[in-house]
Amino acid sequence: MVFVLASSLCILPSDIIEEMNKNRLEAFSDGVFAIVITLLVLDIRIPKVDYAHLWDAIIAIMPKIISYVYSFFIIGIYWVSHHNITRWITAIDRTIIWLNITLLLFVGFIPFPTSLMGEYPFQKIPIVLYGLTLLASNLTGYLTWRYVSKNNRFLDPNIPEKEIRGINMSFLFVNLFYVIAIGVSFVNPYLSYIMFLSVVAYLVIFRSKEHKQHKSKIT
Amino acid sequence: MVFVLASSLCILPSDIIEEMNKNRLEAFSDGVFAIVITLLVLDIRIPKVDYAHLWDAIIAIMPKIISYVYSFFIIGIYWVSHHNITRWITAIDRTIIWLNITLLLFVGFIPFPTSLMGEYPFQKIPIVLYGLTLLASNLTGYLTWRYVSKNNRFLDPNIPEKEIRGINMSFLFVNLFYVIAIGVSFVNPYLSYIMFLSVVAYLVIFRSKEHKQHKSKIT
Amino acid sequence: MVFVLASSLCILPSDIIEEMNKNRLEAFSDGVFAIVITLLVLDIRIPKVDYAHLWDAIIAIMPKIISYVYSFFIIGIYWVSHHNITRWITAIDRTIIWLNITLLLFVGFIPFPTSLMGEYPFQKIPIVLYGLTLLASNLTGYLTWRYVSKNNRFLDPNIPEKEIRGINMSFLFVNLFYVIAIGVSFVNPYLSYIMFLSVVAYLVIFRSKEHKQHKSKIT
Amino acid sequence: MVFVLASSLCILPSDIIEEMNKNRLEAFSDGVFAIVITLLVLDIRIPKVDYAHLWDAIIAIMPKIISYVYSFFIIGIYWVSHHNITRWITAIDRTIIWLNITLLLFVGFIPFPTSLMGEYPFQKIPIVLYGLTLLASNLTGYLTWRYVSKNNRFLDPNIPEKEIRGINMSFLFVNLFYVIAIGVSFVNPYLSYIMFLSVVAYLVIFRSKEHKQHKSKIT
Repeated sequence: MVFVLASSLCILPSDIIEEMNKNRLEAFSDGVFAIVITLLVLDIRIPKVDYAHLWDAIIAIMPKIISYVYSFFIIGIYWVSHHNITRWITAIDRTIIWLNITLLLFVGFIPFPTSLMGEYPFQKIPIVLYGLTLLASNLTGYLTWRYVSKNNRFLDPNIPEKEIRGINMSFLFVNLFYVIAIGVSFVNPYLSYIMFLSVVAYLVIFRSKEHKQHKSKIT
Repeated sequence: MVFVLASSLCILPSDIIEEMNKNRLEAFSDGVFAIVITLLVLDIRIPKVDYAHLWDAIIAIMPKIISYVYSFFIIGIYWVSHHNITRWITAIDRTIIWLNITLLLFVGFIPFPTSLMGEYPFQKIPIVLYGLTLLASNLTGYLTWRYVSKNNRFLDPNIPEKEIRGINMSFLFVNLFYVIAIGVSFVNPYLSYIMFLSVVAYLVIFRSKEHKQHKSKIT
Repeated sequence: MVFVLASSLCILPSDIIEEMNKNRLEAFSDGVFAIVITLLVLDIRIPKVDYAHLWDAIIAIMPKIISYVYSFFIIGIYWVSHHNITRWITAIDRTIIWLNITLLLFVGFIPFPTSLMGEYPFQKIPIVLYGLTLLASNLTGYLTWRYVSKNNRFLDPNIPEKEIRGINMSFLFVNLFYVIAIGVSFVNPYLSYIMFLSVVAYLVIFRSKEHKQHKSKIT
Repeated sequence: MVFVLASSLCILPSDIIEEMNKNRLEAFSDGVFAIVITLLVLDIRIPKVDYAHLWDAIIAIMPKIISYVYSFFIIGIYWVSHHNITRWITAIDRTIIWLNITLLLFVGFIPFPTSLMGEYPFQKIPIVLYGLTLLASNLTGYLTWRYVSKNNRFLDPNIPEKEIRGINMSFLFVNLFYVIAIGVSFVNPYLSYIMFLSVVAYLVIFRSKEHKQHKSKIT
């Protein structure tokens, strides 16, 4: 079975869904992103305590609140990244649909390791699971991008070559960060947290800054 | 009461939903698909354990994680299949709306047997319930397709006859698989799992292959 | 406060949101309908039991499964009804927005009495709460329809007068059913269930049938 | 690492998200608003009691039901307010995207303090947390509005100057209310509740009235 699966993955053909409405793929994906990001809050709960101990109980779940904030931005990044890719896509085939569903599978899984990170802060197992989930999401995104960018039938012909390579590099760079974050968790979990934060900082802040500089050069 | 009912029937308007906006039916259905697929993760939870036992606890819920992955792809298939049908539909009447809501009723039920499959792996009752839920969803899809394809008022006139029969056969084939999966669970639950996996493999991979051959014959 | 609220409700003006994008109101409402309808399944859960007692546990939650099915169709009806109203609306002001949010408030509340109906089947309190929630939703829908149909600035001028009265009557008729269902729960809860079922039967089946007859008369 | 970061910055593309599809930002945001508003009902649950004590149990969770109603309208207000802002926006850059995701982060957090308000009614800690969450959401909305209105590249040139100032004032006014509500909770929690209710009354009713007067002056 696994062999059949693996071998047939290589020859996944273009077919009748090729002209799938891109809007519907985006709407479905946006729905999943919006739900995953909103479900995160369900993990922030306080055990039944007297009002006198409420403040202590809130302090005790601070790691869960921080995990909520962090995963919110991570899923936000995946949503923005998803938009960055699909905006250049002009045709959709089955392979893209199933790569997209696989991406959503990993993104939809994020609440579980997030919950573990909140329950067992600065511990190895949650960090490794969290890192692997992010790595799997990111790798699927990368595979999707490679698939569509290798075959110019799927891409807007106006896309600059620089853009294609830029998105490629960004995926690889983030993958590297995740691998390092997982690796250093065996040495120092705090370093892993710093790596995770760096990804968000890089994608939200530095990439934007660079855009500005770039732009001013052009103008 | 019956009289009031009868008399009010006389002033109700004619077929007012016939020209329902297809976009809204799709948006609502996409919403339900996206939510069901994302809610699956809520079943993956770990009891409160010491960090020392966390790894054991994660191993213990592996069946839940596998159920998550499987149901994610199953719901993904229903979403793709829903798209395959609605893309050929050009008009919507009340029957289609209510068949669609019935389909969503069964798809929306999937998290329950999925949870049972994760809690009681390789057991007969969860397999039967899971199989019946998938069978009910698939039968509703089949009925919808029969209804719209029998009455050409609902279908895009450009649809090839082969496509109509192809979708018909695919529904019947999958129904047969589900019936067998339910049946063999009384003999060997592991066989049922293989049947379930085969449906996903068939729909994701083989149908695509078939399309390719089909296409190459035409060209 | 209440007085200010009540008095100002009467003079709610047309204002800057008048030209709110109808699509966004529909998208938001569809989102809420889709989520409420899908959340219903979260109430169907089985306590941790040995596999030997699983079947008994499933039988024990049958009322919850029946409540799921019933509320699924009820929310489906509200969604269809929402579409029936908005399709004739051509402009949106603040009053319509807030009536719509109030409608969603009541529809969003349905999972709670549904859960009670599943937990305490054929009992008065859940029936009354369920009936009141449906009545409140339906009354808000009715008020919205009266508001938009009284002021032809909001309605598509092509709407037949019969259609306006038909929707009015349908709302009143269903309200009457709900009031009776609540009332008879004090005498015989089984009668309430029959009333609830009648509403679904009336709206899903009879209204459709009537459409057919009507149509054949015209043709 | 810093070197790799710096060097990869050079090959990243220019301002690629600037022309992000506004529809997709709205669809994603609407999704989050719709999910948050609907998740609120999940907090309304009754412990397993005999039917004889059901009524007492329902009375006991009345604060949760009231919190549900209040937060439903608050999130409704944020949704309307979000629409009010985005309708004037004609271009979207990264800053707007991330301000928007930050807004959704705070709105998505509302179910947690709502749950505390329902569990510990008229107590200081829940009021402060609830007020801070609303204040953070509102401040982010205000910052977004300042950002887009300062740079006319983002705004519809047809927007009247009065509208810009009106939205500014409304944000500041509501912020002031929240600050006071948080402050008076240290003196009298009941006053905080009145302040919270006033915000809803102001935004739903009075701002509408004001618009009417405004309008009649113009005409």
